[in-house]
Order: sequence, then C-alpha cells, then structure tokens
Amino acid sequence: MNRKMATCEGSEARSVLSRVPPLLTDLYQFTMAYAYWRADRHNEPAVFELFFRDNPFGGGFSLFAGLSDCLLFLQNFAFSDDDVEYLRSVLPADTDAAFFSYLKELDCSAVSVSAVPEGSVVFARVPLLEVSGPLAVVQLLETSLLCLVNYASLVCSNAARFRLAAGPRRRLLEMGLRRAQGPDGGLTASRYTYIGGFDLTSNALAGRLFGIPVAGTMAHSYVTSFSSLEEVWPQTLVPCGGAGSVDFICLVKGWLGRVCQILGSKTSLVREGELAAFLSYAIAYPQNFLPVIDSYSVSCSGLLCFCAVALALCELQYQPLGVRLDSGDLCRQSLEVRRVFKECSKQFSVPQFESLIIVGTNSISEQSLAELSKKENEIDVVGVGTHLVTCTSQPSLGCVYKLTEVRGRPRMKMSEDPEKSTLPGRKSVYRLLDADGHPQMDLICLSEEAAPEAGVSLTCFPLGLNKTLQTVTPAQVTSLRLDVFTCGQITFPLNSASESRERAQISLQSLHPLHKRLQEPQDYTVVLSERLHSLVSDITKGNSKGSNFLLSN
Amino acid sequence: MNRKMATCEGSEARSVLSRVPPLLTDLYQFTMAYAYWRADRHNEPAVFELFFRDNPFGGGFSLFAGLSDCLLFLQNFAFSDDDVEYLRSVLPADTDAAFFSYLKELDCSAVSVSAVPEGSVVFARVPLLEVSGPLAVVQLLETSLLCLVNYASLVCSNAARFRLAAGPRRRLLEMGLRRAQGPDGGLTASRYTYIGGFDLTSNALAGRLFGIPVAGTMAHSYVTSFSSLEEVWPQTLVPCGGAGSVDFICLVKGWLGRVCQILGSKTSLVREGELAAFLSYAIAYPQNFLPVIDSYSVSCSGLLCFCAVALALCELQYQPLGVRLDSGDLCRQSLEVRRVFKECSKQFSVPQFESLIIVGTNSISEQSLAELSKKENEIDVVGVGTHLVTCTSQPSLGCVYKLTEVRGRPRMKMSEDPEKSTLPGRKSVYRLLDADGHPQMDLICLSEEAAPEAGVSLTCFPLGLNKTLQTVTPAQVTSLRLDVFTCGQITFPLNSASESRERAQISLQSLHPLHKRLQEPQDYTVVLSERLHSLVSDITKGNSKGSNFLLSN
Repeated sequence: MNRKMATCEGSEARSVLSRVPPLLTDLYQFTMAYAYWRADRHNEPAVFELFFRDNPFGGGFSLFAGLSDCLLFLQNFAFSDDDVEYLRSVLPADTDAAFFSYLKELDCSAVSVSAVPEGSVVFARVPLLEVSGPLAVVQLLETSLLCLVNYASLVCSNAARFRLAAGPRRRLLEMGLRRAQGPDGGLTASRYTYIGGFDLTSNALAGRLFGIPVAGTMAHSYVTSFSSLEEVWPQTLVPCGGAGSVDFICLVKGWLGRVCQILGSKTSLVREGELAAFLSYAIAYPQNFLPVIDSYSVSCSGLLCFCAVALALCELQYQPLGVRLDSGDLCRQSLEVRRVFKECSKQFSVPQFESLIIVGTNSISEQSLAELSKKENEIDVVGVGTHLVTCTSQPSLGCVYKLTEVRGRPRMKMSEDPEKSTLPGRKSVYRLLDADGHPQMDLICLSEEAAPEAGVSLTCFPLGLNKTLQTVTPAQVTSLRLDVFTCGQITFPLNSASESRERAQISLQSLHPLHKRLQEPQDYTVVLSERLHSLVSDITKGNSKGSNFLLSN
Repeated sequence: MNRKMATCEGSEARSVLSRVPPLLTDLYQFTMAYAYWRADRHNEPAVFELFFRDNPFGGGFSLFAGLSDCLLFLQNFAFSDDDVEYLRSVLPADTDAAFFSYLKELDCSAVSVSAVPEGSVVFARVPLLEVSGPLAVVQLLETSLLCLVNYASLVCSNAARFRLAAGPRRRLLEMGLRRAQGPDGGLTASRYTYIGGFDLTSNALAGRLFGIPVAGTMAHSYVTSFSSLEEVWPQTLVPCGGAGSVDFICLVKGWLGRVCQILGSKTSLVREGELAAFLSYAIAYPQNFLPVIDSYSVSCSGLLCFCAVALALCELQYQPLGVRLDSGDLCRQSLEVRRVFKECSKQFSVPQFESLIIVGTNSISEQSLAELSKKENEIDVVGVGTHLVTCTSQPSLGCVYKLTEVRGRPRMKMSEDPEKSTLPGRKSVYRLLDADGHPQMDLICLSEEAAPEAGVSLTCFPLGLNKTLQTVTPAQVTSLRLDVFTCGQITFPLNSASESRERAQISLQSLHPLHKRLQEPQDYTVVLSERLHSLVSDITKGNSKGSNFLLSN
C-alpha cells in the first residue's frame, strides 16, 4: 500500500463515461421514435420510470448508483451528422427523410428527471428514476439509462455486501480491472465499488478520474525477473535522514542469517532471486516496502527474505510496510506470518514489526470473505478482483424502464408473467421511518396525493398479490426522490465518488441489521397508497383509461 | 428484423476501445517499472506470455478474441503530461524525478508481439500472445492487455456455445446492452458475440462502428403508449406500388372480424390500444411490420391484432415480417402462433403467411436454448441478452500474463498452488492435425527448436503432473501464432468483425465434435516438447538458471 494517496476529490475529472454517445442504444428505440413521429405523437408528454424487480444477491437491499453518469449523458444528448447518416442507412428505405432532420435537432431540453440520490439504500419495485418529456425523446433514452444504472448499482451493492462481510475494520482493495467487461467495465467497477464501501483501488485511471485512493506494489513477475544478487543495483542505501551509503546487500545478508537462526530455518532454501528482488525494491522504495512473498515458498523463502530486508530497513531508520500473500490458505499463513513478525519484534527489539500490514489476495468471494471474518487470522487488507467486479453470484441487476403515463393518462403493462406487470401513473415515493430512525417501509403513491405526515396514521396495501389493507403511523417521513434534471439542466450537484460513498455509508448505517443480513434477510416492506392500488385494480379489470377492450368493431 | 442491414464492413471505424488510455492499468505496474528503472534493468529484453488456465463454461475449447483492440492499444501507447503528473502525485515522494521524464517518452517502438489470429479456436494453457520488449515497458502493458483479451475471448466463446446450442439454422440476435458492464461492456459484447457466431445485434453503435447487422422493431412501451384507435394517425395507407389512399383502420377492422371468426375468438377481448399500436406501426413501416404481441394476451389480443393488420398489409401488396414473443412458454406459444399463421394462410389464400418470422426473447440461457432446440417449436430468431453478455455461468475467463524470459534466460513462477506455476522460456506453438484435418493436439516447444513435420513422429509430454512420454505422428502441422506487431508497427491486418467471425466459423468447423460437446466434452491434448519438459524439470529442481537457492550467505 502506498502511504501517500490521491485526494483530488474536488478535481474529479469528467469521466470517460460522460461521453456515452446517444447511438449506444437499441435500434428499436429509433424505429419506435419514427413511428411516434410519423403519427405526430412524438411530442406528447410521457413519463417513464426505472426500477428493478428483485434485490440482488438474495439480499434485502440494494444501493442506487450511476446517477451522475446519467445526468452527464442527458446533458450531452445529441446526435452527430454521422450518427444520423448511419441511421438512415439501416432504417427502412421508406422512412420519411424529415425524420432524420428531426433527429439532428433533438436534445434533452424538454426532459426532466427526479431520482433517488446516488448511494442511497433502495429496494426492489420502487421507482428510482422518473423521466418525463416528449414521448419519442424519453423513449430513446431507455437503453442508455439502463446501461448506466444497471451495472453501477449492481457492483456498488456487491461492494456493500463485501464490506458487510469484511466488517468495518479491515481495509478493502478493489483490483478487478483485468477481469472486468473491457476498459469501461473496469473503470465503472472501480468507481462504484468505492462508493459501495471499498477503500482503495489498483486502477490508476480510476484514481486520476475519480480521486479514489490507489494502492499496489509488486507482482510475481517482478520477483521472478530476478535470479541473482548480481542484478541488484545500486547495492547501497543511505540511512533515512542520514548520510553515507551503507552496503545494503551485506547488511541484509547479516539479517538473513540472524532471522534464520532465531526461526530455525535454513538459509540454503532461500531463493536468491527472491532476495534480490526484495533488495532491489527496498532500495528503490525504502519507505514503501511491501513485497508479495509467495513466489516460491512463503515459509522457506519469501517470509525470510522479507524479514531480512525489512529489519535492515529498520536498522537504517526506514519503516517497512508489510507483505502480500496471494495463494494458499490465507488465514493460516497470516497467523504464521504474524507469529514470525512478533518473534522478530521481540528478539531484535523492533516494536514496529508487530504491526506490519498483511495483505491477502487470492480469488476472494463474498463467501470466502465472510468465512475469513469468522476464522482467526491476521489479514489487515483484503484485495478483491474477479468476484467483486463480475458479480459472480448474480451478474445482472435487471433494471427496467417502463412507461407509466402518456398525455396525463396512466399506462400499465399487463403481462402473462404477473411479476412483469408495471405500476401505472406518475408517482411520489416516501420513506417512512420508525421511532428509532430505521427505514420501516417505502410508500409509493400517485404524485397528486398529499405527502404522508409524521405521527399521522395512513392506510396502504403491501405490494404483491392478494395483500390486505394495513395501517401504519410513521415516526418520520422523507421524500425519496429529488428533482435532479429540469428541462435540460442538471439541478442537483454532481456528486463526487467520495460524496456518494459517504451517503452510502450513512444510508446503510440507518438500515435495520435484519435487512442487512447477507443470508436470509428480513423482507423490507414496500406499500402502495390506497389510490394507487385502486388505479391498478381498475386498469387490470379494464374499466379505466388503460387500454380498453374493443367493444365493437 | 429490418430487411435492410448495414454492410459497412470496409469502413469499420476506429472503435471506442482503441482509445484505451495507458493509465488504465494497475498502480503496481508503475511501482515495478520504477524499481526496474532505478536498478537500470528497465531496458533488459524480456518476454511475457498471455494464456488462460481452464477452458470456460466447463467446455472443451475457447475462441481467442480482442487482438485488434490490443494492437490499437499498443500502437497508441503513450502517457500524457497529465497522466505523468497524476503518477507523480501518487507514487512515493522519494521517487526519482528522472523516472517521470522517462515515462513521458515511453512508447511501444521496441515491443513485438506474436499472437494467435482473432477468432481461432484455442485451449487452456497454450500461450496465445507473446509480448517481447524492454522489461519495464512490457510489464506496464500487462493489465490493459488482459483487460482487452479476457472479456472479449470469454463472451466470444460464450456466443459460440449459444450458436452450438441453437444449431446452425436459427438466427441469433444479441440484445444485452442494457445488462452489460456499462457502455463499453455493451459495445464489447456486441462485437465479440458477433465474432462468436451471432447474426445480429440490437446495439446501434456497434452496428455503426463494427458493421454488424442491426435489428429491432418495438418494445412493450410502444404498445402500452396507445389506448384508443383515435390515436392512430394518419389513418390511411397507399397500396404498395399503387396510388390512392385506403382507409387502413376500416380495412383492418374488417380483417379482425374475419380472423376472429375463423379462429373462434372474441373481438371483445381484443385490446384497442394494442390494435392501435400495431396499426400505427404498420402505417409507419408497412414493409417492416414485426410487433411484440404479448403486451396483454397473445392468444386473446396480440396475435389477433397482428393477423388483422398483417392480412390488411398483404391485401395492399405489402409483406409483413412476423412477430416477437417476450414472455411465457416460448415453444408452446410459437406452435400456437404458427398454427394460426397456417390457418390464415389456408383460409385467406395468403401463402406468405405460413413463413412469417417468429422471434423469441425471454431470458434465454445456453441451457434454455439447448432445451428449446430439443423441443418442438417454430422460433426462427432467438434474442439473447443478460445470460450472453454477463456470461452468467462463468463471468470471467481468468487470463494471466506471465514472465517467461529475461535477458535470454528462462523465468518461471513456482507456486504453492501447482496449477499456478508457469512454463519458462520463449516458445513456439504448433497445432498438429490428424488425417481427417481435425486438430489433434497443440505442441508447445522452445522457440529455438525445429518445427515438427507432417508425417514425422515426435515425442512429447502431455501437460500435467506425472504424465509420461508419448509419441505422435501428425498428418499436418500449422504454426498457431503469427507476428502481429513488430518494433512498434502493426504487421498483421486489423481484422474486421466479420473477418474474425469467418475465421471463428472455419476454426470451429474443423474441431472434432467430441471437443465441441457443451457438456462433458473430450479433453483436447496439449503437450510439451521433450526439451521444454526438461527445462521445467530442471528449474523446478533448482539446478538451472531459474532462481538458484542461496547456497551461502
């Protein structure tokens, strides 16, 4: 780990993600837009909402993320001439040419969005984003908005679960770039795992763009690139704050003999190349010495080399940082490593040796992290790659974007799969808190309804089939969504990664532990107001303004 | 599906992916580069190789992909001043300032790469990419190259499995953008699933950048945005190739009555909004009519509306395309839909109605596609999203990049996990074919060894512990890798997506069916030459030029 970490929070650069081209969408958005345009319906006021149907990973909650990227996308939404020419080449030949002129002038100046702030704890079926504007335009936004929210929220929620599994003390390092879905997948993962509760990333570009603290020292290839002490150059080191070069190889060899003696180890099993690699790294970075110690054998070579070099550094008044373990049984090895550190500390009177950092990185999953947290071990920092960024146990959140209103009339999709049905109408969402400040339930009601009031009882229907009316008296009420984009303008501060991370931590802290359990969490209640429930019933029965049956032809 | 498809193969634009910034890598690449530079080892000639350890998805093969992106990345590799200033801010304060000047001048002009051509069938443990050049530079390339190859090869291999599960006849549409790991994840998925054997993508940007045929017509939101026939405008249609407007609503209503009559259905259960949506879409696109028919009820409304509108189109000499099913039991519904098409064809003497396209899209996985292929059904085109692009059953390939040689001396990592050990030395890779032209085994040997010859027996060791010497006489021999990048220049044509797709098809066709089985495939044999096997043994025993033991201190 590097002691010095980037803290350029304020200067968060415009992300690579802000350049999402509006053509990055499904072709059918354009064919539908044309059909609306052709029927002169493209400017009808319409409302879509974005939500997911199930909390991910079998958990009781999710974190909402991706909002800043959505807002930048909306602000920059415009088709280039090349985009339009491409569309002309793939849309049917009988498409009216005037439609392409229309596309060239499109932007989001008539679009407004209300959204849950990034980093908030959210639940299945609650509309997280409400997008209103001209029918054809808000339809065209669908795929891109889903793409920006889906993975961001998923990997952010995954990170929050790793954080819960790790406990609050252990530091977590994201290192999944090489396993992500290409370059942007990696960048997205670094940003949103940080928001979800990770402390560090290995991804240098994510550090630069998002101000995330970066970490990393060496790979096995560095170690195996050395084969002999002759490759170490320079061979001397100036003591910290002092003067006069010391023959560092000689000093380390002396320490290696003493370390082997007190541990009863054989210097003859120590790999010369590994010792050379550690020596060379320590000479380059005497204040940041943290090698990977399992290139050959931890106990026969790597750990001994580390102790010898680190003790020599201490003798010269430098502070070595620690070690990284990257294979085998991390818990068992970390105990052995700590035991050796303590033995060295005692035998050589080097108190700082007791508290050297041990980093563990070996295909860590949520489950192995949870098990690790239950077992005795001495791992201070855990690095996680593949399972974190690919969200192995559920690689997609399944967000959807559904039409809820056109020209002021509620719309609803009724599906042969009942859980694929949608909730009609423009809505408000409130979070009701109990007397302890824990979120108790989320209430979805029609936007024209009055907000619920603290201390006043209200009646509502839990989401789901055949649920009965219930009464609840909230101790506190908060509105879950805010106006974040109004008529083409961003009206909510674009949160930096660290601001969203702080919101996530606060939001998670307030959630009742029963909902945060990684296995078999208690279901969080989402309810509909009586009026919204009635509207759903009316449309389902076909006697409202949904889609009437054809009574005559 | 649109009849007209993009075919701009030749104009394949520079992909978004070609702009991978070199800072998109792990921080430890820079800390190691500095340590090499500090020890004056940064220009030592070094060789890395890239491979994966297990064939993905429990299968018998993989497809190699991502090469064009790697080559563009290497060609453009250079740090900006901002990159270097960022690195200065995060590397330890005692880093020598001259190192940052060195970084500013770095490029890949001294780097060379040999690689398997994109789209080739490849196997676990075979080095796919060999990267040689100055030690510090080739080390810096690690994470970015892994990121570009890992997911590309994984999703390409996944697509090949979906293709095998679907059989050669059925057309496959990729539609995973909204579920991918952010924007580039979606773009990468579209490109590499096409190479792996998909026919179409829904992703418009992928169509434009890579010349992939695009497809798509309408979503449920289009259907639910209509509630009454009053919203249909214009209400008339000019017959194909003819003149004089026809009252299209009136015409369709007539057909609806006749369709309901021959099928014994009730017009009173037909949704007016759905009929209006189909009417409106058909008026906009009379030659491209392919609606989604499950917004309310396929049999009571969607299918009847489709038949009425499509028969009216036929009457006006247009050719409707077909329908999309997006929920429920796709096989059962497709049989019902085809039965109705045939009935209409017969009753109304409209022969083209028999062969209308049926598209199925409903959370298709490899398994459900394989099951679908075994069951009776009438689905012509299958659309796949989430399971394809997220590679649900194994979301990471686990490619690694390992040092094999420095200054002409072989390097090897020996791990506490034996399968994490690497193969030392610079190598050549040959594919030995049997008399039927099927790949029989891949031979890895040291680069200085002579190539095996067809018809000449050779002795070799299968990869793995305690395998014994075996003899083989190949009928044909091909060299698996080509020089693709030499001293900073791309020396192999950058293949378009369709060229790589063709290679993949040819490469897969030659593979023996036993290796292509989706479940329990026969293992493909990878062997080491006797000389390479001896080198591994020597280094493992510690008596070669690997990393000697410290015999004295």
